[in-house]
Amino acid sequence: MRNIRLLLQYEGTRYQGWQKQVSTDNTLQGKMETLLTRMCGEPIEVHASGRTDAGVHAKGQVAHFHTDSTMSVEEMHRYINQYLPEDVAVLQVSEAAPRFHSRLNATGKKYAYQIINSEVPDVFLRRYAWQYPEQLDVVALRQAAAYLLGEHDFRAFTSLKKTKKSTVRTIHEIDIAREQDLLVLTFRGNGFLHHMVRILVGTLVEVGSGKRSPESVQQILCKGNREDSGMLVPAKGLTLLEVYYE
Amino acid sequence: MRNIRLLLQYEGTRYQGWQKQVSTDNTLQGKMETLLTRMCGEPIEVHASGRTDAGVHAKGQVAHFHTDSTMSVEEMHRYINQYLPEDVAVLQVSEAAPRFHSRLNATGKKYAYQIINSEVPDVFLRRYAWQYPEQLDVVALRQAAAYLLGEHDFRAFTSLKKTKKSTVRTIHEIDIAREQDLLVLTFRGNGFLHHMVRILVGTLVEVGSGKRSPESVQQILCKGNREDSGMLVPAKGLTLLEVYYE
Repeated sequence: MRNIRLLLQYEGTRYQGWQKQVSTDNTLQGKMETLLTRMCGEPIEVHASGRTDAGVHAKGQVAHFHTDSTMSVEEMHRYINQYLPEDVAVLQVSEAAPRFHSRLNATGKKYAYQIINSEVPDVFLRRYAWQYPEQLDVVALRQAAAYLLGEHDFRAFTSLKKTKKSTVRTIHEIDIAREQDLLVLTFRGNGFLHHMVRILVGTLVEVGSGKRSPESVQQILCKGNREDSGMLVPAKGLTLLEVYYE
Repeated sequence: MRNIRLLLQYEGTRYQGWQKQVSTDNTLQGKMETLLTRMCGEPIEVHASGRTDAGVHAKGQVAHFHTDSTMSVEEMHRYINQYLPEDVAVLQVSEAAPRFHSRLNATGKKYAYQIINSEVPDVFLRRYAWQYPEQLDVVALRQAAAYLLGEHDFRAFTSLKKTKKSTVRTIHEIDIAREQDLLVLTFRGNGFLHHMVRILVGTLVEVGSGKRSPESVQQILCKGNREDSGMLVPAKGLTLLEVYYE
């Protein structure tokens, strides 16, 4: 049986996230499986590197599926892009090692969160960025971000309550770049908990607008309470940029 | 009577262009006039630096209108953005000199045309860029563009037939930048004829894909026939970036 790897791009605006749900057929996994099942002539299950929530975008989501189809990867690529709606595109289709698993083998991920830091909306970024009118102090943002780097227990920065699974993760890099009114916060790490990037951004924004100190981020990490960290910022600002493998 | 100047941004996708039409109320001028008439409590006429065609975007369109309203420009700014749909935004509202005219006083304009030069669609740029799959040679594009710089009769590069008005224009700069699959062609000049940027791009693309030589552009200028120049490329790739005044 072949193992096929996909590199995917999607605008999340119209979808209820990646993961298939019983209550709706408007998920990216659901749409992909319907299409691939038709293409391969056999029931196909697609697995991605991780679920993205409703409204979250992806520029480099990785997924894989097993099939007995004899189509070439080039034929698959053309077929898939021909039938996908215009807010989803497959960038690459390739033959993967038999045991490759897009989620289990992922060693890290990179996300970007975009903020229009202006009182004036940006028409062209309205689907891909969150508008935040209060002026954000980039120096304070970077100071706070420095405390988040490295290995920490990020339980204060996730919406999941009481889990037996580890909430320890390593953030390798946080880049904060400003170009005019567009602020882009990029996070690279070995993995991210549910809602983690959006709560990190919500906390950083409170630092950047002077509502809390950069040092307070350290205390949030130590105490580990969700009540201490910042708000969950809107999904539309978040984009999964890249998934890393060995 | 006051003269108010507006700096406007819009995504052209949903509109039948800037200019008011009897056949449709779905124009940007029409939408703006309805809103400003309501705001000022008197019939308002808005004039822009130039009409943009259906589907063309603007990041820096300039417009002006006369009013007896006593609202401050800050109040106007808030009012307008509150009632505009999310694909239109006013970036600045300011008091202009009594004789300022957004079209008659304009000394130049800058446009960008975006091309996704790839067989793979780009989900995030699908509304703002034209996808052209054949690989384009940037060196050849730049060679051809050099012939277009300066003052020329651009009658071969407009859709308007037989006009008594001059078709002589000056192009000050053509910048051709490539970042991965995104090719951005920027044109700055003292004015542009109807469809001129899109026909220039259509001609350059034929040069870039080897269908005609860079030198042929010079002959098209000399002969002045629309039949010799390239195709009119789709509106969605075009954005009015800036309007210049003294």
